[in-house]
Amino acid sequence: MSEITVAQAVLAQNEARAAALNARFAARGIFAVNVMGAPGIGKTSVIEGLCRQLTCPCAVIEGDIQSELDTLRLKGCGISAHQINTGGACHLETPLIEAAAEALAPADHSVLFIENIGNLVCPAEFMIGEHVKLLICAVTDGSDKPYKYPLAFEKADLIVLNKCDLLPYVDFDEAFFLRGVRALNPDAPVLKTAARAGEGLEEVARWLSGAMSAL
Amino acid sequence: MSEITVAQAVLAQNEARAAALNARFAARGIFAVNVMGAPGIGKTSVIEGLCRQLTCPCAVIEGDIQSELDTLRLKGCGISAHQINTGGACHLETPLIEAAAEALAPADHSVLFIENIGNLVCPAEFMIGEHVKLLICAVTDGSDKPYKYPLAFEKADLIVLNKCDLLPYVDFDEAFFLRGVRALNPDAPVLKTAARAGEGLEEVARWLSGAMSAL
Repeated sequence: MSEITVAQAVLAQNEARAAALNARFAARGIFAVNVMGAPGIGKTSVIEGLCRQLTCPCAVIEGDIQSELDTLRLKGCGISAHQINTGGACHLETPLIEAAAEALAPADHSVLFIENIGNLVCPAEFMIGEHVKLLICAVTDGSDKPYKYPLAFEKADLIVLNKCDLLPYVDFDEAFFLRGVRALNPDAPVLKTAARAGEGLEEVARWLSGAMSAL
Repeated sequence: MSEITVAQAVLAQNEARAAALNARFAARGIFAVNVMGAPGIGKTSVIEGLCRQLTCPCAVIEGDIQSELDTLRLKGCGISAHQINTGGACHLETPLIEAAAEALAPADHSVLFIENIGNLVCPAEFMIGEHVKLLICAVTDGSDKPYKYPLAFEKADLIVLNKCDLLPYVDFDEAFFLRGVRALNPDAPVLKTAARAGEGLEEVARWLSGAMSAL
């Protein structure tokens, strides 16, 4: 019983802090995007492409258990980025984002991408001050993901189906995938990209700009 | 402090139960394989191929948050399988395996595959009665995984690099991947497969048979 009580208290405390951070971001016109997805589905490539497409300033908080690879890569492209290393924790939580945002100092009226730990399970359970959750999937990972990992699909505001350039080489049943998504989430758009080739990102950027203008 | 104490107690209790289950399996010649890996890297395809290759009886415990898709697929191939649905939990723990093994009733002197939740983070932290940990990666997920998700690579007894039939279509730096693996784990063999095409599984099956005979 005590384990459950402690976990509930931790979750409630995180949600209150996340809501406060969300309000502080909104007051400055900073549009925070929680980028979620399994390891290796192309989260950083999508973010890099979106930073090129968007006309407002962008900054990125990179979440990884270990390594600065993604931050170095983004900085190499001239993108403002700050690395969080959780050292083992499987998802980001609000206090980490507060500290990272302080260090990164994103501009007013900017988009702040927060790349969560590569994990299709745990990040969906924790709010981190975001205005929208962007879930990235890849056709190389199979079409059964919504059926097996429902929470991330249920909570997503926008779903990007990435690596579509590899469709000819894999068995991906798009109708089955979409049926699974729609059973969980009737509204979130599903946009197809091939981030490595820079394809499909204009539409994702357009959706984000629209959502940002409603902030 | 109380959160940490509770977590440590839970971990210690799980380890003791896992060790006891491991001993019970060993006493009956049941070789338990904890199959870990990110979502969609082909865990079930590798297991299916290994069940065809191995000459001893095989059975599979399938771990998923939701859905029976993998169990139905394996049963459709004539493989004895039992589904665990965690309903949200991001990894398997020993009590779930005890109950599933009771329901599945694997034969003496058999291989018992336990397909963990698709998650490159949390499953590596929990023993579940296994004799070996088999970590599956895929070339479609990029070569940086050992650097970002060290624990799973550190703990693996055998690493399978799957989807090698897609190597011509992706950017996968094998030398970088192997350097990352070896920095964490000097001994675990890294075997290349294309499970969908049935390639490379003989060698994996041979390694498992060898490890089983040392039980």
